[in-house]
Amino acid sequence: MRRGKILNTPAIRRMPTYLHKLLKMRLEGKVSVSSTELAEYMNIELIVVRKDIALTGISGQRRVGYDINELIKYIKNYLGWQNTISATLIGAGSLGSALLGYDDFNHYGFGIESVFDSDPAKIGKEIRGREVFDIDSIESRLKNAPPDVAVICVSSAAAQQVADRLVALGIKYIWSFANVALQVPPGVVVQREVIAGGLAMLGVRMKLDRDHDTGTAFD
Amino acid sequence: MRRGKILNTPAIRRMPTYLHKLLKMRLEGKVSVSSTELAEYMNIELIVVRKDIALTGISGQRRVGYDINELIKYIKNYLGWQNTISATLIGAGSLGSALLGYDDFNHYGFGIESVFDSDPAKIGKEIRGREVFDIDSIESRLKNAPPDVAVICVSSAAAQQVADRLVALGIKYIWSFANVALQVPPGVVVQREVIAGGLAMLGVRMKLDRDHDTGTAFD
Repeated sequence: MRRGKILNTPAIRRMPTYLHKLLKMRLEGKVSVSSTELAEYMNIELIVVRKDIALTGISGQRRVGYDINELIKYIKNYLGWQNTISATLIGAGSLGSALLGYDDFNHYGFGIESVFDSDPAKIGKEIRGREVFDIDSIESRLKNAPPDVAVICVSSAAAQQVADRLVALGIKYIWSFANVALQVPPGVVVQREVIAGGLAMLGVRMKLDRDHDTGTAFD
Repeated sequence: MRRGKILNTPAIRRMPTYLHKLLKMRLEGKVSVSSTELAEYMNIELIVVRKDIALTGISGQRRVGYDINELIKYIKNYLGWQNTISATLIGAGSLGSALLGYDDFNHYGFGIESVFDSDPAKIGKEIRGREVFDIDSIESRLKNAPPDVAVICVSSAAAQQVADRLVALGIKYIWSFANVALQVPPGVVVQREVIAGGLAMLGVRMKLDRDHDTGTAFD
């Protein structure tokens, strides 16, 4: 099933950054925040912040700003993060380890409950307090209660084979950091993170700057 | 300076995935590829692939498809990757290590030439063949030839201070993996990678599916 396109992608991808800031402000004892403050922090236009926040369904209180607690609740609700999302991580290399150490996941209700790898040097070891299991035990370990999400942090060459096994287990949401397009049956959602995507964006910006500099040299 | 918004962000972010596939096909001895093949691989609409490819400026040859060598050249040129981009990496933790081990960077002309960290346990050690330098030596080591790009892989709490030092060194492009909005002066570009952004997208998709399932239960 090719689903309906998700609108508001850039806004959705900004939500964790708002959330990070709001959680930090709350820890600092603040109770309200204005959209102007958020726009300055995010370095984006005020109107964009207002639209982002409106997506969550919160009603703004123009004069006193938004109640931080409320806004956190609305953002989490918008992202479906008010519930706990269970996950398994495949690939305990450096990227996998980085994700295991990503502190904010706790605030997002995202819990990586198991870790698998095929490398005998890693199997049985602990990474950030979690035991690494043999990938060949994934079926027996997860078949009775497959998690909501599987995170793929294996090499591009191994990713498709891993995805096939996850799909066979009934896992419906795959968050993949492999730089390949995974082939999955209808009903399975793959969220692909292309790490080099940011580098592509930077490359285009640098090129625009160079072209601009060259251009003004002839003024 | 708040620059003009870069259009085509999703297309630009897809480019590394096309490139990965094309480089692989070339290694397999293939010489041409059709937009249909690419659409099937990417699991996106044909029209989207055609638009993506048109952005690079290549002229299509409908019957025989695109020449793979040519298409690689056009994509690299579009992304400004035909030149070498020099970089320094700040933060040699697991995410930094993952980036150092990202094989495709070589194909993209992206070279991380130096690595810095503040952790005495890491300074002087080698990570993936590169010596980790003391962050406090960054000014003396880079002042004569600052790299094009600095990659920030330090904690959110430390990121702003690191950014200030990079800006003082004259580095104009920052690729930041810290989950904070960095404040930089006009003329400096920050490309922020919000790792949790993909999780936000997944959360919204899961919520849509749940709402849909609930909806159909009443049909």
